Amino acid sequence: MALDIEAPTGTDASPRVSISELRSALERGLPAAYILTETEQLRPYECDGLSAYRQIPRAVVLPDRIEQVQHILRVCHKLRVPVVARGAGTSLSGGSLPHAEGVLLSLSKFNQIITIDPDNRCARVQPGVRNLAISEAVAPYGLYYAPDPSSQIACSIGGNVAENAGGVHCLKYGLTVHNIISVTMLTMEGETLTLGSGGLDGPGYDLLAVLNGSEGMLGVIVDITVKLLPKPVVAQVVMAAFDRVDQGGQAVADIIASGIIPGGLEMMDNGIIRAAEDFVHAGYPVEAEAILLCELDGTAAEVAEQVAQVRTVLEQAGATEIRTSRDDQERALFWAGRKAAFPAVGRISPDYYCMDGTIPRRELGKVLNQIQELSRQYGLGVVNVFHAGDGNLHPLIMYDANQPGQLEQAEALGGAILELCIQVGGTITGEHGVGVEKINQMCVQFNTPELEQFHALKAAFDEYGLLNPGKAIPTLARCAEFGAMHVHGGQLPFPELERF
Amino acid sequence: MALDIEAPTGTDASPRVSISELRSALERGLPAAYILTETEQLRPYECDGLSAYRQIPRAVVLPDRIEQVQHILRVCHKLRVPVVARGAGTSLSGGSLPHAEGVLLSLSKFNQIITIDPDNRCARVQPGVRNLAISEAVAPYGLYYAPDPSSQIACSIGGNVAENAGGVHCLKYGLTVHNIISVTMLTMEGETLTLGSGGLDGPGYDLLAVLNGSEGMLGVIVDITVKLLPKPVVAQVVMAAFDRVDQGGQAVADIIASGIIPGGLEMMDNGIIRAAEDFVHAGYPVEAEAILLCELDGTAAEVAEQVAQVRTVLEQAGATEIRTSRDDQERALFWAGRKAAFPAVGRISPDYYCMDGTIPRRELGKVLNQIQELSRQYGLGVVNVFHAGDGNLHPLIMYDANQPGQLEQAEALGGAILELCIQVGGTITGEHGVGVEKINQMCVQFNTPELEQFHALKAAFDEYGLLNPGKAIPTLARCAEFGAMHVHGGQLPFPELERF
Repeated sequence: MALDIEAPTGTDASPRVSISELRSALERGLPAAYILTETEQLRPYECDGLSAYRQIPRAVVLPDRIEQVQHILRVCHKLRVPVVARGAGTSLSGGSLPHAEGVLLSLSKFNQIITIDPDNRCARVQPGVRNLAISEAVAPYGLYYAPDPSSQIACSIGGNVAENAGGVHCLKYGLTVHNIISVTMLTMEGETLTLGSGGLDGPGYDLLAVLNGSEGMLGVIVDITVKLLPKPVVAQVVMAAFDRVDQGGQAVADIIASGIIPGGLEMMDNGIIRAAEDFVHAGYPVEAEAILLCELDGTAAEVAEQVAQVRTVLEQAGATEIRTSRDDQERALFWAGRKAAFPAVGRISPDYYCMDGTIPRRELGKVLNQIQELSRQYGLGVVNVFHAGDGNLHPLIMYDANQPGQLEQAEALGGAILELCIQVGGTITGEHGVGVEKINQMCVQFNTPELEQFHALKAAFDEYGLLNPGKAIPTLARCAEFGAMHVHGGQLPFPELERF
Repeated sequence: MALDIEAPTGTDASPRVSISELRSALERGLPAAYILTETEQLRPYECDGLSAYRQIPRAVVLPDRIEQVQHILRVCHKLRVPVVARGAGTSLSGGSLPHAEGVLLSLSKFNQIITIDPDNRCARVQPGVRNLAISEAVAPYGLYYAPDPSSQIACSIGGNVAENAGGVHCLKYGLTVHNIISVTMLTMEGETLTLGSGGLDGPGYDLLAVLNGSEGMLGVIVDITVKLLPKPVVAQVVMAAFDRVDQGGQAVADIIASGIIPGGLEMMDNGIIRAAEDFVHAGYPVEAEAILLCELDGTAAEVAEQVAQVRTVLEQAGATEIRTSRDDQERALFWAGRKAAFPAVGRISPDYYCMDGTIPRRELGKVLNQIQELSRQYGLGVVNVFHAGDGNLHPLIMYDANQPGQLEQAEALGGAILELCIQVGGTITGEHGVGVEKINQMCVQFNTPELEQFHALKAAFDEYGLLNPGKAIPTLARCAEFGAMHVHGGQLPFPELERF
């Protein structure tokens, strides 16, 4: 489609195109009512789940057909206007924070489940479909969609792909990238690409994996085929309490070492235990320094065998109390506290800042002690909840935004925790993405050639850098300003590359 | 490192640099004995496992240190000389076929297992380590490396990553990409990039997934950290015979639908059954039109339960005979025929051409009938062996290279089979890669914007197209010449994209 719009000269993003010019170009392929440009209309879109950052975009567009999305992208490409795609806006790292010069592209009207194919265990859905709505729709076939971020009641599957979302069950069943069969995306030029296929492997470069977790920087997702799994026949949760956090950490390592891969393996420290128990009355032992929740799922015989094995491991690791859920109601109760951990902390602290980092499992005890040390240094309380099985930490930093300087202090403490994760051989994200939140820490995680390679890949999809500018991958200039020392890679002493 | 070499002008690959000039530049960072340039020295490298294609390179280099590889790449980058990396040379799609103007970079001397880390269930290895050598080295810890291509005794882990190799067990345990934690690669400019990390997710674009299966087009792998799994306590194989191939296909669908994911699920047709039985005397029922081998692994209780379930499904699907391996010896015997299928066919046909495509499981019966129809049309016998659980077909086309025209006829039939795979919603590779073999079918599999995106991504890693030129991704000019009709994607009728 040739657009009758004069392109601005130069290749930089976001030269000042007048709002009326932008609106009139958009209206050629989109009902006027689908284009919001008044400040009061734009306000609801000014932030996502990371509400410390707010930005009013120039316009919000609300298309309901793929051709409209294509038109929006072509207009913005021609006019060099940045585009930020948004699903449900639940990102915890500011992935869908609007751009001041840009268009916020809401995909919330794309909320249809197109086909359910039980034979091939997959479903084709639009990007705005809520994560939980997929499992609900396929439940009559005895199937479900495995990745279950805590926000699953609200977050959209398109956002899940963009952020490569995880969840309690990703230890056993994988992240979003492991549960997506194919995606249709539009490039910034409005071209249609189908990535992935029904086969286990596919020819060509694995663009589907690149798109997963690319934080809206490479393309706009318009169609997704997800993998479905049969619901396990039986699931039971074993809860264990420990007097010391490091004992809990050791128990996690021992369970994994025993060859069992639990459906979920979560750990909470005393601060979270107390907050959650106060809130949902799950029956947690509030004196414990740590509790583990270990879910086993499968057939009846398999689960019975694994529950017995796990209980033995927990006893040997020094658990002071071990309980196994007797029925699904009790299982739900055990999980209720974990799932309500974030709002529970909201009740004991005016504000909290949820971090997300990943470390090798064996470093758990050491890292927790160092987080406590950092907490003292920065003068802010930290409580911890983890996807322990895969080493994904969620320290919650408690602060009061009404106290001058506390937000900044919380952010600094968060940065220090992320850098600690890198130092022990981990990474600065487990499942929340980088967004605007962790962009400085990317300078620590990656060396210059690695960042240059990311920028080259971005340019291969989006020549003018119009898709979600300023997120996920820092410029080299920003890293120079941040003054980060890259802590591994880079000057590798061959032949013994020290990485782990 | 600044190289004191004058770069040729222009940006095209492979201008004629004299061999003495090339050799002298290489010798500045590599012992002279590591550089082969005489025809008789080069001959052993003229082909890989796809021996129908042969090409003598200009030089073969045999470095044993990473700095040497870096030097080779910098020299070749500066002089615009193509580089083809080679592990064990077992590619079945010509992935490591040399380039006439280029350097063949052998990584065979990088054959050390650097560290084994049982706590974190991983091992760091050099790229030339043989696949099976990893499992052998970690066996004392009760661990193994899961992907097991048929060539595992010979093929190297670096080649496995480059081709995203599969194997009998990849249905349950994933392809290579699912079993690699991180890779250190060198870019064509000789820069070091570390891709992936110990964490489950990682920030930045997923370059590790892109590298997997990129067929040596993006970088040279110099260090790999693989995931290790605990060896299952028990494994048993159920063998079932069927009077009709489509009954076997239905049984595969039924097993998967029952919620079981077998460790392996393989099917052979009558031609293969007879050839394999003659060769290894596995006790296969030679009158059967199809046999299924279904391996169940796990704990004793789990396997016992699943064996019973699978036997019930097989009976209902109309199996004429069902046998369960009584011990590991019998299990090995059941597998022996399957694992020897290729050499067994070598005994009944002067030559054979092994194809590799993937289809949705439900299309198995239909596709097999159409392959038989194509076999009649082209006048060449075809026998079939499949990784049935994941829809990966390996039709073996039997021909006689000494009969004029038969090789060409076999290739044409192979191409027709691949296009059939695409038509039913599958892909042209399951685990062997595209290489030179299937490059024309890439024009059928992908539309123009998709191919353009592949080229853009390639250029983001390798500006001058020096790494393994002419493989995996066809130029648009080649597709125009091949005259392929792209059969899906492209002109998608929105909003109902017809893909499956």
